[in-house]
Amino acid sequence: MSDKPAKYCKESRAVKALMVLPPDTNHYGTMFGGKVMAYIDDIAAIAATRHARTSVVTASTDSVDFLHPIRAGQSVCLEAFVIWTHRAAVEVFVKVVSEDMLSGERTVCATSFVTFVAMDVNGEKQMVPGVIPETELEKLFFDGAADRAKKRLEKREQSKALAKRFGTDKLWPSG
Amino acid sequence: MSDKPAKYCKESRAVKALMVLPPDTNHYGTMFGGKVMAYIDDIAAIAATRHARTSVVTASTDSVDFLHPIRAGQSVCLEAFVIWTHRAAVEVFVKVVSEDMLSGERTVCATSFVTFVAMDVNGEKQMVPGVIPETELEKLFFDGAADRAKKRLEKREQSKALAKRFGTDKLWPSG
Amino acid sequence: MSDKPAKYCKESRAVKALMVLPPDTNHYGTMFGGKVMAYIDDIAAIAATRHARTSVVTASTDSVDFLHPIRAGQSVCLEAFVIWTHRAAVEVFVKVVSEDMLSGERTVCATSFVTFVAMDVNGEKQMVPGVIPETELEKLFFDGAADRAKKRLEKREQSKALAKRFGTDKLWPSG
Amino acid sequence: MSDKPAKYCKESRAVKALMVLPPDTNHYGTMFGGKVMAYIDDIAAIAATRHARTSVVTASTDSVDFLHPIRAGQSVCLEAFVIWTHRAAVEVFVKVVSEDMLSGERTVCATSFVTFVAMDVNGEKQMVPGVIPETELEKLFFDGAADRAKKRLEKREQSKALAKRFGTDKLWPSG
Amino acid sequence: MSDKPAKYCKESRAVKALMVLPPDTNHYGTMFGGKVMAYIDDIAAIAATRHARTSVVTASTDSVDFLHPIRAGQSVCLEAFVIWTHRAAVEVFVKVVSEDMLSGERTVCATSFVTFVAMDVNGEKQMVPGVIPETELEKLFFDGAADRAKKRLEKREQSKALAKRFGTDKLWPSG
Amino acid sequence: MSDKPAKYCKESRAVKALMVLPPDTNHYGTMFGGKVMAYIDDIAAIAATRHARTSVVTASTDSVDFLHPIRAGQSVCLEAFVIWTHRAAVEVFVKVVSEDMLSGERTVCATSFVTFVAMDVNGEKQMVPGVIPETELEKLFFDGAADRAKKRLEKREQSKALAKRFGTDKLWPSG
Repeated sequence: MSDKPAKYCKESRAVKALMVLPPDTNHYGTMFGGKVMAYIDDIAAIAATRHARTSVVTASTDSVDFLHPIRAGQSVCLEAFVIWTHRAAVEVFVKVVSEDMLSGERTVCATSFVTFVAMDVNGEKQMVPGVIPETELEKLFFDGAADRAKKRLEKREQSKALAKRFGTDKLWPSG
Repeated sequence: MSDKPAKYCKESRAVKALMVLPPDTNHYGTMFGGKVMAYIDDIAAIAATRHARTSVVTASTDSVDFLHPIRAGQSVCLEAFVIWTHRAAVEVFVKVVSEDMLSGERTVCATSFVTFVAMDVNGEKQMVPGVIPETELEKLFFDGAADRAKKRLEKREQSKALAKRFGTDKLWPSG
Repeated sequence: MSDKPAKYCKESRAVKALMVLPPDTNHYGTMFGGKVMAYIDDIAAIAATRHARTSVVTASTDSVDFLHPIRAGQSVCLEAFVIWTHRAAVEVFVKVVSEDMLSGERTVCATSFVTFVAMDVNGEKQMVPGVIPETELEKLFFDGAADRAKKRLEKREQSKALAKRFGTDKLWPSG
Repeated sequence: MSDKPAKYCKESRAVKALMVLPPDTNHYGTMFGGKVMAYIDDIAAIAATRHARTSVVTASTDSVDFLHPIRAGQSVCLEAFVIWTHRAAVEVFVKVVSEDMLSGERTVCATSFVTFVAMDVNGEKQMVPGVIPETELEKLFFDGAADRAKKRLEKREQSKALAKRFGTDKLWPSG
Repeated sequence: MSDKPAKYCKESRAVKALMVLPPDTNHYGTMFGGKVMAYIDDIAAIAATRHARTSVVTASTDSVDFLHPIRAGQSVCLEAFVIWTHRAAVEVFVKVVSEDMLSGERTVCATSFVTFVAMDVNGEKQMVPGVIPETELEKLFFDGAADRAKKRLEKREQSKALAKRFGTDKLWPSG
Repeated sequence: MSDKPAKYCKESRAVKALMVLPPDTNHYGTMFGGKVMAYIDDIAAIAATRHARTSVVTASTDSVDFLHPIRAGQSVCLEAFVIWTHRAAVEVFVKVVSEDMLSGERTVCATSFVTFVAMDVNGEKQMVPGVIPETELEKLFFDGAADRAKKRLEKREQSKALAKRFGTDKLWPSG
């Protein structure tokens, strides 16, 4: 772990509000999943960098469940903060909340965890400060982090083995 | 299950090649994770629609592991095909392969599963055809599908419970 | 004024953080003024809609002073809240703050006032709730609002007279 | 002032016509104010560079009054030319005209003044040529330039004082 | 031919100036051919609509020769005007000129002809006004129009025959 | 010709599938010609680079005939492969096929030839490998290549002569 002092979750908190416009939506008028995922990565990177104060590169994105559709004419607000770190790894929690602009009603539409690796300008991994959870939610997530990291590593090894076994040539005669 | 005849995986296969341009990359010259995720959702939706022959909406995206960085000047090629269906649910496997344009070397950079729900124009769920796996990889994925679906459902219930317990107001005094 | 109860400034507060990427910048590596203005309008519209809870259309944007350049690799955070209303008019204050991601240093780069007109779905003007300023800054801006509105109206009349006197044909033989 | 010979306004004249497409518009079908402002900055920069023949950076944008809505299906044509210079400062007038494509009717929708600072490749300020106004409009604007510059400077000092007094920390506990 | 009176070429003239930015260019710093073609189609459509005063749809784009590279940091200016019409067909000439912003030197980088079909809101073809050429260039192009139209028709028939003979299935087992 | 061994057409084959979204279409709901041309250039460049294994720059795009409109809600699939080379020149054939997502019906909407010049990092022309046609279509196109190259050269000389005779100043008093 870095010898820099640990930081509170709220110190890395980053927020991004935006209007959902017709080009962001399919012909049911609901926001494309891929757009939401791109925004999740974007705001998570800001939170991770605020905590690490070095550059970061996305290592993995946990599964994203789209709990409720986000509609054109609504606004959507993404909130991200660092929930756990380990050596050069930074784990960020992201919440996606839609807002009906006429009624003001807000709905949690998706949540996800994104992990980053902190690096210096030469691409060398950098130790990052620890995390001090404060709220009930932060503590809950902090306590579950080691388990999430373990599952993520297993999953990553499976993906690597899969990539090795069923490589590019077998699936892809051309394309 | 739909009364339409089952289809082979290769019938839904969709391919998207693109050059990685500087605006797609961070200052290490590697492609943003969010960009990759948006392309994954995009090509997966084409494969799902080719299988279902109805409109589809993203239900969830499994975790994405970024196994190798994708660099500006490389091309990236995404390949997607339907690997499993159940009632109105369509599961798509996506492989992301980078190609060094000078040497021709190809590397599997990421893999993911994306699930969709098939709907008619009124948003009513539509039964979709079954899947006939042929290759070793297709059979491996097909056999693992029920287990993935079970874990996904558990994960979704956890996300919903979380959204309910730590709703919008608690985390979000303003933003 | 609307018969709906007046609201606090903080109730309409909207925040948008984003990374400044190379395509957002000129060849000095500083963010295009036009990009900043587009983001100002975007976040101001969210704040205005949160206050009015009807649709809004931009009426005017006050001058924007670019006090400090915003650089690629920094993040920029825009904050907007409604500071004054009058009948269907909604005045929003926007602050643009850059953040050096390595040092964490923040700098106010620009401030502006944007005014909107609240409308229903048929384009009819809608009375909006009043504003209750709380902080020293909010009170300062609230007290100056009537004067800003007066100057804005004079300016608008001048622009209209100018458009009438030196119309399209005189300046524009073709194009 | 530069020792390069003064130039006519028409020498820096720049024109940009474009179709207004659905993604450029809100759900009333009228063009976003932020889009218009981004185009104003873009065409003004071309005019300023044509006059200065050095690189330029946006210093300020005067208030923009949206006199008439611009609608999807119309074309919009922006025209910009340098109206005044002072040392390294370049002031550009921009006119935004919509055109109904079926009737050919044109309407002045907005006007604005944008100021730039001319710089060499090292970011050193560069003296720019003077301006020779010819038409009635050019003379009117030229004569009013010193007064606009004075007001702009006062406004800028106010913005700076405001940024200093109500800095980043007070308004922004997080975001 | 339409019973509406014929129009001069200059009446449909449309101009679009823009800065060439890094995202528009490859790693030699020269503008992508595809970007140039998209702008050619865009400005040609404005010219065709100004002449026809109905909606238009692109029918064909003649070959585009990239005579000189366009570089980041230059501006590019596209000029389009209608040069010939026949029944519902509208032929537009487009010239693409780059400008070195420091020296002011201008270079013709590409020229092309784009043809459109004029349609009413129901997609019915609409007769369009004739064209009156005035300048030497306009007369030269006007006189060559019937020959270009004949060659274009032959080429189109070849393309259709080719599409029929080597249809989708033969080339495209999957993709 | 390069001393590297000749390659089969299928070795350079590149495929790009994409959904046609509302922002890609005009108000008839058909895809803009300019968008199609930009995609043609993009996929052709990947095919050319796969064959040459050096960087390439667009030299010319043959005429594009839009045989059938492409509609929002359809997918479009572009397929490109190198059909002929000569010294540093690479000729690519591109086919654009639309797919009705509900019925699965596919239609060839456009075909085109795009030529590139192969270059090393210093912009020096590079000899490229020859081409071995295999299928009936490939042989047909291969045999017609010298004739297409000859016509293209004539056309290019005409464009150059035209650019010289009716240069920038005559057509462009300002813009």
